[in-house]
Amino acid sequence: MGGNHSPHDPNADRFADDPAFAVHEGGKLSVTSTRPIESIADLALTYTPGVARVSSAIAAEPELARRFTWAPRVVAVVSDGTAVLGLGDIGPTASLPVMEGKACLFKEFAGLSAVPVVLSTTDVDAIVETVAAIAPSFGGINLEDISAPRCFEIEERLRERLDIPVMHDDQHGTAIVVLAALRNAAKVVGRELGDLRVVVAGAGAAGVACTKILLGAGVGDIAVADSKGILHAGREELTPVKRWLVENTNRAGFAGTMVDALRGADVYLGLSGGSVPESAIATMAEGCIVFSLANPIPEVDPVMAAKYAAVVATGRSDLANQINNVLAFPGIFRGAIDAGATSITEEMKLAAATAIADVVGNEVRADYVVPSPLDRRVAEAVAAAVAACAREQGITR
Amino acid sequence: MGGNHSPHDPNADRFADDPAFAVHEGGKLSVTSTRPIESIADLALTYTPGVARVSSAIAAEPELARRFTWAPRVVAVVSDGTAVLGLGDIGPTASLPVMEGKACLFKEFAGLSAVPVVLSTTDVDAIVETVAAIAPSFGGINLEDISAPRCFEIEERLRERLDIPVMHDDQHGTAIVVLAALRNAAKVVGRELGDLRVVVAGAGAAGVACTKILLGAGVGDIAVADSKGILHAGREELTPVKRWLVENTNRAGFAGTMVDALRGADVYLGLSGGSVPESAIATMAEGCIVFSLANPIPEVDPVMAAKYAAVVATGRSDLANQINNVLAFPGIFRGAIDAGATSITEEMKLAAATAIADVVGNEVRADYVVPSPLDRRVAEAVAAAVAACAREQGITR
Repeated sequence: MGGNHSPHDPNADRFADDPAFAVHEGGKLSVTSTRPIESIADLALTYTPGVARVSSAIAAEPELARRFTWAPRVVAVVSDGTAVLGLGDIGPTASLPVMEGKACLFKEFAGLSAVPVVLSTTDVDAIVETVAAIAPSFGGINLEDISAPRCFEIEERLRERLDIPVMHDDQHGTAIVVLAALRNAAKVVGRELGDLRVVVAGAGAAGVACTKILLGAGVGDIAVADSKGILHAGREELTPVKRWLVENTNRAGFAGTMVDALRGADVYLGLSGGSVPESAIATMAEGCIVFSLANPIPEVDPVMAAKYAAVVATGRSDLANQINNVLAFPGIFRGAIDAGATSITEEMKLAAATAIADVVGNEVRADYVVPSPLDRRVAEAVAAAVAACAREQGITR
Repeated sequence: MGGNHSPHDPNADRFADDPAFAVHEGGKLSVTSTRPIESIADLALTYTPGVARVSSAIAAEPELARRFTWAPRVVAVVSDGTAVLGLGDIGPTASLPVMEGKACLFKEFAGLSAVPVVLSTTDVDAIVETVAAIAPSFGGINLEDISAPRCFEIEERLRERLDIPVMHDDQHGTAIVVLAALRNAAKVVGRELGDLRVVVAGAGAAGVACTKILLGAGVGDIAVADSKGILHAGREELTPVKRWLVENTNRAGFAGTMVDALRGADVYLGLSGGSVPESAIATMAEGCIVFSLANPIPEVDPVMAAKYAAVVATGRSDLANQINNVLAFPGIFRGAIDAGATSITEEMKLAAATAIADVVGNEVRADYVVPSPLDRRVAEAVAAAVAACAREQGITR
């Protein structure tokens, strides 16, 4: 048990210096039985012949599965390993520790069981068919670390096909926490979302979803930059999702680089990696907001950013204002599952963002625009808000 | 938590009279984290940024996944719900309680995590593709309750395609325990396996696998009956697996009904349901052996059988000599996984059967030819025998 590697002398273990490896020894998850089997009578109820009566009842009345099986409360954490953290396309097996970690967080913060499902295929059709085939085993599908633009089509097709919540966390988890942070940052600087001009650096999974949710929340104008500069009507050979961005952003009509768009901008949202020079940040508007989420090295040095910005947030756990998806996904799935929601809607995401922002409430200040990732109130508040929204929308079972 | 059904008055609950439903309330499984997350430091090791170092190490050296992820020690319990217990084709959702029960038994008897994966498709190609796609998430595939003859092709193709253990338990779990029981029953009646003439009633998943393992163990002659009678060279329009049986069984040349073949037979093995008349059992050889495994109603009434047979075994938990797959599958997967075996071979199955029989050892008697399903020594002995066999065969990583 506990690993099949050869016994090794800890002094000789090349992984002994990094505590991350000790934490991963043997993996981070376990499936446990909630019913003890200590007698033949236990066996005859948990398994045959008693289990046959429960299966028969469900066959006659499928809704009973919600009560008498675990599946409605289990989230599959599905990845093909193509866009893992900042590591890129490392494949399914190497992505497993991340998916296990995600499952740990689902349990820790929302009491939900979650199972890593990593895939040996990167083909869009094959991924959609595979997830659809295994869907009766689960109550929700958390897509994770799937590269853009494939992630958009995969999520869209699975949302259409399945009647359980499906969410690509790299898109919407990030977007929800960014919106929560921006709501509170706007309060700190005394601005309305509708008055803000935002520059989003990155048009991948997170960039697209952040842009959409910020537009949905009423942000005034957004210019989105990919590696070739600002997305505008003159750009050619764009993917469908970038074409959508061209049609729905950049009312100011920027056509150059991100640096051009930063001049006078109210908000910088970095989701791209790379680095932004001080000279560009210095041109932003008075009382500007800098969210620089590349991890571990933010695009904008946070110490430098603080010279110009009224609020600075990063993805780093050692700095104030950590934008961490764990503030969103556990509560969102918990709320959707509690309500028996058949999907996760834009309205539910907006409700989640407001709930996260509201946990900070009146304590909001420049170095406290989002709650701590360990704040246990968050998942509970998000779950309640998401469930209430689902019920209001009438999309529950 | 604990189910999304409406709160209900226990007095009004139509399931309150059957304790099997209470045992299934909310499901029988839970995924737990083996690492507490109580601080930002915990979060930074279990999840980002620490997890990135583990994922990077595995990307560079894939074998490290055996040590630093849970997957190599997790069994997927895969079913399409087409042949569930005696209930037949009840579909994936209704099969879930059975798959959850199986996962409980994996944990209870072998300390292995197991995850139910029930499928929304019954197409052979789609099942093979789906299981192959999710295989990097698991250390073994236990196929379960998939109808014949599809189960044969699905298992064969997955065994060829994957480098982890794949076993259809309805075939081989049953076969292994039947062989263990027959070894000990032969001892009780003082016979050698090679001298026995066996009649197998049923040519489905269990009938085929039992016949194959008994032939592999050296049983003298076997006549297999399906619903149309004994399989023989004159039978037409047979599936490939029944054609194989025709070519490898029935040296005695029976061409009639099962009742004809029972005359003078040493062993009856019932895997078909239905009922066998006393007049047929009365014609079997002196000191015969009756294994009647239909559950809950054996094909041969066990009280009647005892009038003619020296040893009687059934699938029932309330009678002596219960032939229960739980004696086999937990230890088989544990042993295969412990050894890092890339498949489960015929030799490993034979070793498992011998190990199960040997737990009974010298205490063998007519009403004790197999250990109790709760005997904790069994899985351990089976795992050790299976792992040793895999290592001898050189099929380990």
